[in-house]
Amino acid sequence: MKTAKIDFILGGTVTSPQGFYAGATCAGIKSDKDSLDLGILFSEAPCVTAAQFTTSNIKSAPAILSQERLQSGIALAVVVNSGCSNAYTGEQGLADAAEMAVLTAEGIGILPEDVLMASTGVTGQPLPMELIRVGISQVILAQDGGHELAKAIMTTDTVPKEAAVAVAVNGNEFTIGGVAKGSGMIHPDLATMFCFLTTDAAVELDFLKSALRRAADISFNMISVDGDTSPSDTVLIMANGLTGKASIAADSQQTDTFQQALDQICIYLAKAITRDGEGATKLIEVAVNGAISIADARLAAKTIVSSSLVKTAVHGNDPNWGRIMMALGRSGAEVVESKIDLYLGNVSVLKGGRPSSFSEESVVQVLKQSEVPIRLDLNLGAASATAWGCDLSEEYVTINSQYMT
Amino acid sequence: MKTAKIDFILGGTVTSPQGFYAGATCAGIKSDKDSLDLGILFSEAPCVTAAQFTTSNIKSAPAILSQERLQSGIALAVVVNSGCSNAYTGEQGLADAAEMAVLTAEGIGILPEDVLMASTGVTGQPLPMELIRVGISQVILAQDGGHELAKAIMTTDTVPKEAAVAVAVNGNEFTIGGVAKGSGMIHPDLATMFCFLTTDAAVELDFLKSALRRAADISFNMISVDGDTSPSDTVLIMANGLTGKASIAADSQQTDTFQQALDQICIYLAKAITRDGEGATKLIEVAVNGAISIADARLAAKTIVSSSLVKTAVHGNDPNWGRIMMALGRSGAEVVESKIDLYLGNVSVLKGGRPSSFSEESVVQVLKQSEVPIRLDLNLGAASATAWGCDLSEEYVTINSQYMT
Repeated sequence: MKTAKIDFILGGTVTSPQGFYAGATCAGIKSDKDSLDLGILFSEAPCVTAAQFTTSNIKSAPAILSQERLQSGIALAVVVNSGCSNAYTGEQGLADAAEMAVLTAEGIGILPEDVLMASTGVTGQPLPMELIRVGISQVILAQDGGHELAKAIMTTDTVPKEAAVAVAVNGNEFTIGGVAKGSGMIHPDLATMFCFLTTDAAVELDFLKSALRRAADISFNMISVDGDTSPSDTVLIMANGLTGKASIAADSQQTDTFQQALDQICIYLAKAITRDGEGATKLIEVAVNGAISIADARLAAKTIVSSSLVKTAVHGNDPNWGRIMMALGRSGAEVVESKIDLYLGNVSVLKGGRPSSFSEESVVQVLKQSEVPIRLDLNLGAASATAWGCDLSEEYVTINSQYMT
Repeated sequence: MKTAKIDFILGGTVTSPQGFYAGATCAGIKSDKDSLDLGILFSEAPCVTAAQFTTSNIKSAPAILSQERLQSGIALAVVVNSGCSNAYTGEQGLADAAEMAVLTAEGIGILPEDVLMASTGVTGQPLPMELIRVGISQVILAQDGGHELAKAIMTTDTVPKEAAVAVAVNGNEFTIGGVAKGSGMIHPDLATMFCFLTTDAAVELDFLKSALRRAADISFNMISVDGDTSPSDTVLIMANGLTGKASIAADSQQTDTFQQALDQICIYLAKAITRDGEGATKLIEVAVNGAISIADARLAAKTIVSSSLVKTAVHGNDPNWGRIMMALGRSGAEVVESKIDLYLGNVSVLKGGRPSSFSEESVVQVLKQSEVPIRLDLNLGAASATAWGCDLSEEYVTINSQYMT
């Protein structure tokens, strides 16, 4: 019999697992000079490391280099800055990213090829290397440094995003921690976002890759802020094995529990990114059940949560449920209009494709909540998926009309 | 030798071609009771008719019925209302749409199966049939009634959209006219929009279908206001042959000229819809050249013009060209970063993927124009495509947060 327990740790962060250290500094890259904008994450033991990078055909320099380095499946540190994404910067960008890794490696006393890089912020401008050189030399690594790292990767984020879970399974205890950032260019295909995850469990590389892919598929790949995808997106997990137990692989006793714990922390951080979307005032959760395939359920949920007209209606507390049907209809998912049940919160809006007798006011009350749950039962099959998004506000437009200037 | 001439007609509209009549009335369907909201288009001779309907999997009742009726390839009239789209209305919606056609046919003295229907406006509510019955009986058809029809189909449109071209080719003269409406739920896959086109040329059905498909592909299918697709979209062309000349088919002397004229009027109306997009303050034109395939060129142009971040940057006159690269990168089109040339207006911004030495102020001046031309040369192949969109303003959010309530 298996006994498994997964608990979120109060105040948990990316350095909660054993042997991970982090730190950050105000290098002056962001326009707000008092803001943390350069950070380092380091493990005292080599980490089996899996990652997913942006699906964009034009990747940022750090994304290109980190992806190359991760062919080894091993990393010891990540250096990251906000304020400048080092994207669309050509050969100079690649040289600058490589130098960031060299400086970090020298400071810690490890090899440059064991250092990954990530940069976020304005595109098309070279990294201010003088600031970065000084900054890297200033970073002090500490066991509770995860909180500083969470702040250093913020751009238009208004709150840091961090979490950790403690896992106990069959006497095997380990921790998974993570930090993440949003909050524009967020869309189902792994958009402008970072998520750095750590664990002190020992995990076999192939399983770690597949576990991360699965967790990202039901978390970061199911969120949308604005439908755009950045050149810099990076989700990675470093497993240093300091718990000293046998490596978790695809057929271990701990496999399912590790996956569940990773799923939970990824969904937690994905929702945190969405809730803090640019200009967002509420979180929208769209659950699609009864689809003929998972692909259809995902497509329907993602299309609805990404629709500008659904997002503006939710923003305005407008009970215009026709827009949900519009987005479902155009999603490409197979539907039969006369079979569709639609709920906003617990209010039945459509039953068998026809309006239920609900009061408009009860729907308005659901829309006024800080989390708006939308549920569709297609009644065609057994597949389900959930997607998360945010409302579209005038503030989103204002933020993004004046980002660079 | 072929001599062809295509001229836009001053004040031209859908009733400019011979034998077409139209009229409209204030039926009281829209909340503004003094607003035209019900109209009829009629041809005195049977029309070879081709149409394209919404790609949504949940179509409105009038779209379903009209599509069925058009299997004959023949129509004599279109009845259309704004204020209520008769979508997501089930069996009752189909019965109401059919009754609209019966009433129109009885009023004119033709058969109901020769009448097409279209409805636009709020979804999920039944048609107010009492208002529609009275309204249809009030419509007076006139040879200059196209202008009234153009107004009657408006929803959030701020200006009517209408045009006509006079075509002369090898002694064969004919006219093509049209009216169209936007202006929300507009996206590349034939979104919430109507375009009713007429011609007095005789045109063979198969060629008319392919000519309409081609014209729509480079016009209505290349515009985006907000990425959403409505259940009601309808583009149709009625050819009554009253010029008395031989039917134009795929291999006629007039084939190319007819296609060019149809392309021109469709692009004109598509741009008019985009320019009048909800909350739009300017038109964005994205031309992509040098792609390896037409599909890639279309994908790149449509993705850029649909990007929320590009649209907000244009709105704010923000010279943040990295967002254009971001959208290009995520579009899926094949690109090589070091080969990309980017122009805003006549200003070279990138040459071979690297920033040109341009003044930011010169780009800001281009962004301040009422039409903002963006041009990308991918330098990989010979394929080109152009897409049109509009900026994303706070006003778009305000309009769509309060549409129903």
